[in-house]
Amino acid sequence: MNEMRHDWLSDRWVIFAPNRTTRPDDYDRTPHIEPESQLRCPFCQGSEHETPNATLILPGKDWESTRSTRRRDRAIAKSDWLVRVVPNKFPAVGFGPSPVAWTESTRENPSLNADSPSSAFTPLFVKQSAVGAHEVVIESPQHVASITDLSPEHARLVFEAYRQRLAYWSARPEMKYAVVFKNYGADAGATIVHSHSQLIATSFVPSEILRVQRRLALYHKSHQQCYICSVLDQELQAEDRIVTQSEHFVAICPFASRFPYSVSIIPRTHQSRFEDASQDELADLARITQATLNAIESEHPRCAYNFVLQTCHFDQQASDSFHWRLKIIPRLSKVAGFEWSSDCFINTVFPESAAQTLRQRIQSTVPLASPVAVAPASNSIRNPQ
Amino acid sequence: MNEMRHDWLSDRWVIFAPNRTTRPDDYDRTPHIEPESQLRCPFCQGSEHETPNATLILPGKDWESTRSTRRRDRAIAKSDWLVRVVPNKFPAVGFGPSPVAWTESTRENPSLNADSPSSAFTPLFVKQSAVGAHEVVIESPQHVASITDLSPEHARLVFEAYRQRLAYWSARPEMKYAVVFKNYGADAGATIVHSHSQLIATSFVPSEILRVQRRLALYHKSHQQCYICSVLDQELQAEDRIVTQSEHFVAICPFASRFPYSVSIIPRTHQSRFEDASQDELADLARITQATLNAIESEHPRCAYNFVLQTCHFDQQASDSFHWRLKIIPRLSKVAGFEWSSDCFINTVFPESAAQTLRQRIQSTVPLASPVAVAPASNSIRNPQ
Repeated sequence: MNEMRHDWLSDRWVIFAPNRTTRPDDYDRTPHIEPESQLRCPFCQGSEHETPNATLILPGKDWESTRSTRRRDRAIAKSDWLVRVVPNKFPAVGFGPSPVAWTESTRENPSLNADSPSSAFTPLFVKQSAVGAHEVVIESPQHVASITDLSPEHARLVFEAYRQRLAYWSARPEMKYAVVFKNYGADAGATIVHSHSQLIATSFVPSEILRVQRRLALYHKSHQQCYICSVLDQELQAEDRIVTQSEHFVAICPFASRFPYSVSIIPRTHQSRFEDASQDELADLARITQATLNAIESEHPRCAYNFVLQTCHFDQQASDSFHWRLKIIPRLSKVAGFEWSSDCFINTVFPESAAQTLRQRIQSTVPLASPVAVAPASNSIRNPQ
Repeated sequence: MNEMRHDWLSDRWVIFAPNRTTRPDDYDRTPHIEPESQLRCPFCQGSEHETPNATLILPGKDWESTRSTRRRDRAIAKSDWLVRVVPNKFPAVGFGPSPVAWTESTRENPSLNADSPSSAFTPLFVKQSAVGAHEVVIESPQHVASITDLSPEHARLVFEAYRQRLAYWSARPEMKYAVVFKNYGADAGATIVHSHSQLIATSFVPSEILRVQRRLALYHKSHQQCYICSVLDQELQAEDRIVTQSEHFVAICPFASRFPYSVSIIPRTHQSRFEDASQDELADLARITQATLNAIESEHPRCAYNFVLQTCHFDQQASDSFHWRLKIIPRLSKVAGFEWSSDCFINTVFPESAAQTLRQRIQSTVPLASPVAVAPASNSIRNPQ
C-alpha cells in the first residue's frame, strides 16, 4: 500500500509509490549531452566580448586587498576572474517603458504584490510589462560543467556572487524579489554546458513565495516559533532523513518532497535573508552543497538537477517566520499528466531511503582537491589553463 | 520588452519571452525514442495475459446490440476489442488497510478534502494511506503510438472509455475525484510506447482542483456567470487565440498559458461533468482532439505531450460554476529552477502566435482515414492485423 504525505508548508499531498520504480520502460533514458562538435563557449575565459559587460567580477580589487591573507588556490592567482556576473543576453524580464495598456476587458489591475484579487473585480485578460533584471553567474573561466568540479574556495565565490547581487538588487526600490537558481543538464532546462547559475530579480513577489510566506507567518503566529526551525529540531532527533551536517547547515531529504532525491540545505540557526550570511557560513554552504551534489552525481551519473535559493522578499529586513534555504531538485523523474492536473506529485523514492543512499555516498567520497576541466570547447585554445 | 499575463483562474502570472527562443543551445534535443530491440509490448492484442483482468472492453456486447446501425470501421469488425481498460500493475494508489498511524508529532489529521488546515493545529509529519484506483486505458489492440493514428470512430471509443470509467468511479462513495490523463513520449512521463491513457481515482480532491473550484465559485458568485463561459465568449469575439472549432467545442491557446502551444478544448455550452457528454459530443471531441494533436505533431514532429481532462469533483452532480475541458500540454520546454522556485512560468511562444501556426497546420492537413500500425513490436507476430 502506498503512502501519502502532507507538505504542510505548500499544503500539498505527495504520493510515495516505490513500487513504480519496477515499471517496464520502453525508452532510452540516456541524459542529453552536448554534441562533440560544439564550436565555441561564450562563457569561457577569452570570450568575454560575447557577453554583456560584467556587473560583478570575483575576485575583484576589493577582495584582493581585504582578503589577501586568505589561503588561495593556485587557480585564483593565475586567472583574471574566477566568477563573473553578466546581464543575460536573452532576458526573461527587463527594464523598459511603463506597463502596456490594459485590454478592453480590464476593469482594474490586480496587484502584483497582493493576495488574490478580491471578488469585486475580475479582469479576464490582464497583461503587464515584465519588469526586472536577469543575470548569469558564470562560475569559472575554465570550461567546467559542474559546480562540483570547482575547489571549495572557488565554489564559495559562487555563493559570494549570489550574496553580492542579491544585496545589490534588494537595495533597488523597484525590485521586490529575486530568484537565484541553477539549471544543470538539458533535462533541467540548461542550454549552456559551462557551469553557471542565474538570478532573476522581479518587480513583484512571485505567487509561490507569497504562499510560502503566508504559511510561515501563520505557523509563527500560532506557535511563536519558526516552522523551519521546528522541522529542523525534529529532523535532527529523527535522524533518518539527514544526508549530512556541517557547522552551520543541515542537509535533509524533506519528509514530503515531490522529487526523488530532493535535498534541502538549511541553516541551523534562524536567518531570514541569504544576503546576511557571513563569509564563514558561505564557505560552509559551498562545502555542504558540493558534498551533497557529489553524492547525487555519484549515485545518478550525469543526472540533471536544479537548485534554488529560497530567501526572504526584499521588503522585509528580517523576519521571525522566514528561514532561508537551498533546495536541490534532481530531475530523475518526469512531471506527467497527473501532476499537471492535480498538483499532487508521485514520488517513487521515500526520503528516508534517498537520505540513506546519499549518506553512504558521502561517507565513501574523497573530497575533490582542485578544479577539473572537462569537455574542452574548441575555443579553449584561447584559454591557457 | 517582454510581457506578463495573469491567469485569473490559477492566480498565476506567466512571463512571455519570445526573445529566448533565439538562445544558443549546446544540447542535442532529439526526443527519446523506444529502442529497436523492444522485445514485447504488454498492451498489444495477444498479450492480454500480461495485464490484470479488464474492467472495461470496448466494443462490448451492449455496444454491439445498441449501436449496430452505426457506421463502423473495418478494424472494429475484425478485432475482439478496440479499447481495453485494465488496473495498472504498478499503481500509484490502491485499496488497502485503513490509514496508517500518525507519527508522534501529529496532533490532528488535516482534512484531505477541506481547505488549508486552520492555524489551530499544525502537524509537521502527517501521512496517510494512498487510497484510490489506478487504471490504464489501452487505446488499440495494434501497436500504434499515438491517438492520432486511430480512426475518428476508434478515437471516440477512447473518450467513451473515459466516460464509462468516470461514471463508475463517481458512483463509488469512497472516491472523491478522478484525474484522466495521457502521457505521450518519454519527456511527458510515458514509459510504454503503445498508445494509452490513465485514470487515477482518489479518496480526496487534489489541491489544484480545489483551488480552481474555489476560484470558479468566486467568479460565479460575483458575476452570476461561469468564468469559462465568459472567457469563451470573449475568445470567440477576439478570434486570435482560436485554433479550431467544431459543432460542440472550441480549441483555444489560452491567454496566459504556461507552456508553448498549450491548447484547451472547451465545450461551447456549459457542462460541469465530462460523464454527462453525449455520444455525439464524444465523437466531436475525438475529432477536434485528433485535429489539434495532428497539428501539434506536424509542427513539432515526435513532440511529447500530456493531455488532462478537467472535470467536476464527484460530490457535485452539476455545477453552475464548473465547466469541464480538455487541456493539451506539449512538452517542448523544460520546467527549470525559476519555475520551481516561483511558480511563475516563462513561455517563449505567445498564444496568438501558437494558435495562428496550428490553424495553418489544420487547414493544410488531410484527415486520417484508418488506423496506422507503427513500429511493430516483435510479438506482433502473434497479432495478425
